[in-house]
Amino acid sequence: MTKYVYTFGAGKAEGNAGMRDLLGGKGANLAEMNCIGVPVPAGFTITTEMCDVYYKNNKAYPPALKEQVAAGINYVEKVMNKKFGDKHNPLLLSVRSGARVSMPGMMDTVLNLGLNDETVQGMIESTNNERFAWDSYRRFVHMYGDVVMGMKPQSKDAKDPFETVMEELKNENGIKHDNEMTAPMLKELTNRYKKLIKNTLGKEFPNDPMEQLWGAIEAVFASWMSERAIVYRRRENFSDDWGTAVNVQAMVYGNMGEKSGTGVAFTRNPATGENVFYGEYLIDAQGEDVVAGIRTPMQVCHRGSTAWAKENGISEEERKEKYPSLEEYMPEVYNHLVDVYKKLENHYKDMQDVEFTFENGKLWMLQTRTGKRTAPAAVKIAVDMVNEGLISETVAIQRINPADLDQLLHPVFAPNAKRERFAKGLPASPGAAAGRVVFNAEDAMEWNKRGEDVILARIETSPEDIAGMDAAVGLMTSRGGMTSHAAVVARAWGKCCVAGCSEVNIDYVARKMTANGVTVSEGDWISLDGSTGEVMLGKVETVEPSLSGDFGKIMNWADKLRQIDIRTNADSPEEAITAKNFGAQGIGLCRTEHMFFGGDRIKLMRKMILADDEAGRREALKGLLAYQTEDFYGILKAMEGYPVTIRTLDPPLHEFVPHEAVQQEELAKEMGVSVEKIKNKIDSLAEFNPMLGHRGCRLGITYPEITEMQATAIFEAACKLTAEGHKVYPEIMIPLIGTEAEFKNQKAVVQKVADKTLAKYNLEGKLNYLIGTMIEIPRACLVADKIAANAQFFSFGTNDLTQMTFGFSRDDAGKFLEDYYAKGILKNDPFQTIDQEGVGQLIAKGVELGRKSRNDLKIGICGEHGGEPESVMFCHKVGFDYVSCSPFRVPIARLAAAHGALKYAEEREKNLKAQNHTPIKAKASEAAN
Amino acid sequence: MTKYVYTFGAGKAEGNAGMRDLLGGKGANLAEMNCIGVPVPAGFTITTEMCDVYYKNNKAYPPALKEQVAAGINYVEKVMNKKFGDKHNPLLLSVRSGARVSMPGMMDTVLNLGLNDETVQGMIESTNNERFAWDSYRRFVHMYGDVVMGMKPQSKDAKDPFETVMEELKNENGIKHDNEMTAPMLKELTNRYKKLIKNTLGKEFPNDPMEQLWGAIEAVFASWMSERAIVYRRRENFSDDWGTAVNVQAMVYGNMGEKSGTGVAFTRNPATGENVFYGEYLIDAQGEDVVAGIRTPMQVCHRGSTAWAKENGISEEERKEKYPSLEEYMPEVYNHLVDVYKKLENHYKDMQDVEFTFENGKLWMLQTRTGKRTAPAAVKIAVDMVNEGLISETVAIQRINPADLDQLLHPVFAPNAKRERFAKGLPASPGAAAGRVVFNAEDAMEWNKRGEDVILARIETSPEDIAGMDAAVGLMTSRGGMTSHAAVVARAWGKCCVAGCSEVNIDYVARKMTANGVTVSEGDWISLDGSTGEVMLGKVETVEPSLSGDFGKIMNWADKLRQIDIRTNADSPEEAITAKNFGAQGIGLCRTEHMFFGGDRIKLMRKMILADDEAGRREALKGLLAYQTEDFYGILKAMEGYPVTIRTLDPPLHEFVPHEAVQQEELAKEMGVSVEKIKNKIDSLAEFNPMLGHRGCRLGITYPEITEMQATAIFEAACKLTAEGHKVYPEIMIPLIGTEAEFKNQKAVVQKVADKTLAKYNLEGKLNYLIGTMIEIPRACLVADKIAANAQFFSFGTNDLTQMTFGFSRDDAGKFLEDYYAKGILKNDPFQTIDQEGVGQLIAKGVELGRKSRNDLKIGICGEHGGEPESVMFCHKVGFDYVSCSPFRVPIARLAAAHGALKYAEEREKNLKAQNHTPIKAKASEAAN
Repeated sequence: MTKYVYTFGAGKAEGNAGMRDLLGGKGANLAEMNCIGVPVPAGFTITTEMCDVYYKNNKAYPPALKEQVAAGINYVEKVMNKKFGDKHNPLLLSVRSGARVSMPGMMDTVLNLGLNDETVQGMIESTNNERFAWDSYRRFVHMYGDVVMGMKPQSKDAKDPFETVMEELKNENGIKHDNEMTAPMLKELTNRYKKLIKNTLGKEFPNDPMEQLWGAIEAVFASWMSERAIVYRRRENFSDDWGTAVNVQAMVYGNMGEKSGTGVAFTRNPATGENVFYGEYLIDAQGEDVVAGIRTPMQVCHRGSTAWAKENGISEEERKEKYPSLEEYMPEVYNHLVDVYKKLENHYKDMQDVEFTFENGKLWMLQTRTGKRTAPAAVKIAVDMVNEGLISETVAIQRINPADLDQLLHPVFAPNAKRERFAKGLPASPGAAAGRVVFNAEDAMEWNKRGEDVILARIETSPEDIAGMDAAVGLMTSRGGMTSHAAVVARAWGKCCVAGCSEVNIDYVARKMTANGVTVSEGDWISLDGSTGEVMLGKVETVEPSLSGDFGKIMNWADKLRQIDIRTNADSPEEAITAKNFGAQGIGLCRTEHMFFGGDRIKLMRKMILADDEAGRREALKGLLAYQTEDFYGILKAMEGYPVTIRTLDPPLHEFVPHEAVQQEELAKEMGVSVEKIKNKIDSLAEFNPMLGHRGCRLGITYPEITEMQATAIFEAACKLTAEGHKVYPEIMIPLIGTEAEFKNQKAVVQKVADKTLAKYNLEGKLNYLIGTMIEIPRACLVADKIAANAQFFSFGTNDLTQMTFGFSRDDAGKFLEDYYAKGILKNDPFQTIDQEGVGQLIAKGVELGRKSRNDLKIGICGEHGGEPESVMFCHKVGFDYVSCSPFRVPIARLAAAHGALKYAEEREKNLKAQNHTPIKAKASEAAN
Repeated sequence: MTKYVYTFGAGKAEGNAGMRDLLGGKGANLAEMNCIGVPVPAGFTITTEMCDVYYKNNKAYPPALKEQVAAGINYVEKVMNKKFGDKHNPLLLSVRSGARVSMPGMMDTVLNLGLNDETVQGMIESTNNERFAWDSYRRFVHMYGDVVMGMKPQSKDAKDPFETVMEELKNENGIKHDNEMTAPMLKELTNRYKKLIKNTLGKEFPNDPMEQLWGAIEAVFASWMSERAIVYRRRENFSDDWGTAVNVQAMVYGNMGEKSGTGVAFTRNPATGENVFYGEYLIDAQGEDVVAGIRTPMQVCHRGSTAWAKENGISEEERKEKYPSLEEYMPEVYNHLVDVYKKLENHYKDMQDVEFTFENGKLWMLQTRTGKRTAPAAVKIAVDMVNEGLISETVAIQRINPADLDQLLHPVFAPNAKRERFAKGLPASPGAAAGRVVFNAEDAMEWNKRGEDVILARIETSPEDIAGMDAAVGLMTSRGGMTSHAAVVARAWGKCCVAGCSEVNIDYVARKMTANGVTVSEGDWISLDGSTGEVMLGKVETVEPSLSGDFGKIMNWADKLRQIDIRTNADSPEEAITAKNFGAQGIGLCRTEHMFFGGDRIKLMRKMILADDEAGRREALKGLLAYQTEDFYGILKAMEGYPVTIRTLDPPLHEFVPHEAVQQEELAKEMGVSVEKIKNKIDSLAEFNPMLGHRGCRLGITYPEITEMQATAIFEAACKLTAEGHKVYPEIMIPLIGTEAEFKNQKAVVQKVADKTLAKYNLEGKLNYLIGTMIEIPRACLVADKIAANAQFFSFGTNDLTQMTFGFSRDDAGKFLEDYYAKGILKNDPFQTIDQEGVGQLIAKGVELGRKSRNDLKIGICGEHGGEPESVMFCHKVGFDYVSCSPFRVPIARLAAAHGALKYAEEREKNLKAQNHTPIKAKASEAAN
């Protein structure tokens, strides 16, 4: 019989930390904590496998489950010495979800399960605290009604119906705060909540604790397939099949009075990585109160507490009285917590994010998990832990998600930029962002769709806001701390966030917010400094980040591991230098068309395009040649010592001509021909599907003189530089090749120019250059052996390859791809991550065939996927020599390549062996000269 | 040492008919004729291999060739008892090209080679005919000057420079006709020709016979790579690598006086297939005179001669005197010729096209080859030869080129259509055509490009006109007979042609033609009846052809052999019935979108598209449902007993909405909304690359209600028909699938409707239907296993698959594909013939993977390639169950499938075995019910 339930408690457990996939992160760690002597309330975990079985079995449970759950409850009852549903000493339970990877706020939780009109009496009996018992009961009915029975607010901005009932009751009794409510009032509230449920849903609140439990289990499984969970998984690239576990655990109470409390802590600072214990707690509260960010939490450590007070302009006296640290307030609990956290970090050898509760002075750990952190924190923690001897360099590398480095590479505000402060909150997620403010997720999505940078401002965020948060460039909230939903999500995503700006009053209905007498309305520009917590009025100028120290160390460790070169896509010497500073080992894609747009150039380009015959085109090209030679001279020099791949003209010619009547008239005047003629010629360039039209090598085949001019410019520049003593390695790349014959045709043109120019400079045999092609047409992958018989290198153009393999026009697909994600038809944007299932097959085929006919074929990628970690790892695996990406993604690619080397060493080895290929490194090519 | 030269003569030969690839068709047959005792002048053949070596060796000959040619000449000298270059008894030679397949008019020929100022004296001596010798000499200089030395007319409409010189001389001497020229005049003419060459080219006409010979050999090889030869090979799908042989042969003279002559004959009538000897000849002429069509030739047979005279309104007296048949004129020669032709036909077991010359009453055969014929003739000859016991049914099938059947299926003029006769010529190639007249090839191409049907009218055609002839729907010439260039080419291509309309006067410069006082100018409509030779004024109505008799026999033989079903692409019951009459076994593609354009339908469609929400769309769809149900009822009924594949909506929605302001206003009024709104909605539908945009299944995914409506219409119609006792087999096909999830999504919608509708009609389990997909996106081929896990059939949409695999937009590629053909980058139009190298790989992969996960997967094709013979054979080979094509191509596909079965039996067997697939036949599916 399959085991679906794993118990833990009292220092032993059926599971352990290694069973994360089966028990979920939370369940595995609850088991593990038990084993290493950390105080954890007893409980059991229903496996993630059960979740999968449940969904695959049409939402039904196998009979075995019932028995195993009953046995689990039995076990908990014994350890905790209480009885589930007992009138005198009832066992109450928490039910939480827990997938293999933490998904903050995504999965629902029910506390105090097992309460009913009878067991509440038993609770009063056993705790001797009537108010606490009724408070627990009304919280339970509220939470269960919401999470399990679906009593949600009617609309986004509507109030929680339970809150409304509570407000009424408080008004009737003339009180303002929850804690003023007496036991009878809470009893009345409980009854009114039940009535509300009956009236709204037409069914009774379940009294039977067992029925309550099964309802909660079902709710956990249901939440796995909630739209918000699906959206989150899509964003994070998690599989729907993983499923969630259900953790059923004996309740302990942080809300049992002044000697109780609850908190969340990180073993190191999750924002900066600093090696200091960092946490927040609340007295007389349950765990959800901290995470929800409704009450402003206090600091766990004294050091943190004084710093916090200073930041918030609170006097030491006020702090001590109103916001004491746990260290001051309950030193024993604090010291126990410190022991535990040290034990945990040493055990897990990584920064931990823990939840704890102290019930009447006794500490209980409710959860430990690897703490989410900002990229700078990840880098610092990894480097520190290597220095501390806790982990190896290799482990350090693996600890950093390459995609997260993006955070380090985000712009920051210019030091001297004028900053007009609007408000200040918590520096919840670093970085800088400027955008127009909107006040709900829908607007954020909509504005973003039409190309606006938006900042999403909310009183607090909830999982329902996920998609809107994704659409915003930055987030701000007026409530909640560093561990609030907004803060946690923003850090995970590397998105700038300022949380808990309590001075700001947000009015959803009027769509504006006010602070210190200043009002900011929907659509106004604001700027966020996620590293200081400042919110500024207007659009503040940003500057590029600079990197060093720990980051440099990580990059060096990565470089030692990785086996492929990282190049950059750059069209100017400036970009080339930026990328070189980020560690780029050459240019993988220099798009020559960008060079044709400046001043005189575009005029010449247009004259060329609109010329009647080859002679006319050659005349205009003569003018362009001088410019292009200059361009290539600059870029080859900037990348001296490294290869520079230059692509010949790619876009359709109509992208260069004016489409407005006024400009056409101007051009006609300049060229001394009739407007009619210009107009006709331009009209004749229009295409039904320009993506599949007259572009790429097809231009060079129709107008060989264009390729000839570009080749001349490249070889003139390279020869001059060589003559001047520079080492340059031009690689001429022909785009959009689909047949062997196309490549041969264009190669012949380039080769002829090369021979002529090298002879002219007496440099025969003295310039290392290659002539190769982009592989971006499906057919090219299928006949790669034939193409490689002629081409010296391949660079996969995965943008176009993805367009054609899927039949998706990137310019148009946005319209329906949203639907595809929503309906689960596509999990990832194939333009972001290489579609390994489909496009990946073509790439692998192209590599295999290419190397079959030329085993020293140099292979790279220059599509945008070249800077996306999963895709970089794929390229490593398949046997590429290099990847090329935008300058700011070079560090990401370096780290991802190292990850690839660690993760797919065997696969690459096997592929390279089959291809009989010795990887080509930039340095090798330098040495060759 | 490689043997490059093969001699023949005097009843023996080093080659034979089996060596066609090496010796060319002409060379192989010259050798073979020698072996079977047919009188052939001695000679030798330089192999096609030499041509290939020549081109691959940078146009240089291996040293061995010189020796071998010298030996060859030696051999000929011996047999003919003459000496090459001898002053007294000179051997003169003809030099002709000969590829493995006949290319009429493509390759150049030189006659009388070996003449110079010395050998001409020897010729006078040996023939005792001074005029003849000088006439031969001047012809040689003319021909050699033209073909070898390149003395061409300056422009298309300019006169041959040699003609001009001759005109001058004739004028000086006051004579009109060539045959009035005396020996001294011809001598003078020869000298003037030489002077003309010297003045024009700056070099002397070569005197040395050996130099002459090498020049001629070089010219033959050069002509292989002439643009016109390349164009022809592209048209005919012949490889450039084949090369041409060079046939060097002793001259015999048809122009040695009244007892000499030359002719061309077919062993059966090449236009009708009738089993009668058919030929034309000229007295005192060389072979080129007949082929060039400059003099009106006479009939070889008496029977043909009287018929010809009758047709041309010539009295029997006049005929006898001016146009005697060879049978009458030289009965001995005629009888010998009859013996020879019978021997040849019996030997080759196919209709032969022979060239003969009689020199002073002695018959010489210059060539025999398989005679080109019209499609009706091919069918008749094949069936007759089976009846005569000459060949088997299988051979008969192979004798007919499936593509040629198109000729049988061409429209003919409506019997009662008003015909206003303009002129009458020879019925050179059957069929009917109406078009606007143009007078040169360039215009034909240009007009055709802009979508005009054109008739090309020329005085006579030459190989330079090939591309223009291709662009025209029909051809007419005012000069030349049934064996003229225009006639031969037109028959080969199945293009309607009226040749030799001698009453018509064509004026190239004024761009008009006159006959019987009526003038037709460029751009006027004329109509050609290629079966009667009539040229009509205006556009004469045409009707569809009907077939029977021999055609039916061939089709039946083909059906016995073929292993795949032939279906049709039809969108209406009428089309379905036409196709059924042509033998279609079901519909492979019914495009539902064509049904949305009529009257009310387009209005409803537009309302649907422009609706604000699902409710609005459903409202409009309700209206469309009634129409669609009716459509499907009709089409399923028309194809009763056979499967009908119905494709759900495919084109982008913007194809259905009005783009003109007026229409938009109208629509706004009808829908009761603002024009602004309509306009905005329509604008929002615009796409950058509609081919890769929101279309196909993507529409159904965004708007499942559309798929639902279409599925409802299909199942309502099918259920009604089933309830009425009809046997129908609907196959619902989802277009543009690229991922498994897309298909599952749409299948679910269709399946739900199917279940509901079948239940409604109590027909559960009683209707045979399939749900499958088009495979037209490259990715679909790569994940075909996953798609086939859900889909019950695949239909390859090779139009789109070709577009995406090549990255060619079919709408735009025309612009550059012409260049591709001209530069030899593409040999065939991949939209016409499946690109087996690239697209074919994807198809094979799709079949392999699809059958891997579902071995009974039904596979077909519904792209236009489904009616193209090579592609049909490919589909047979790969393991398809059926192909589908337009109704009129069904017979072509039937025959092509039979060819495939004969040619690729093993390959198909092997593939089917690997796929573990038992072919699915339409009949089987009928029986299954």
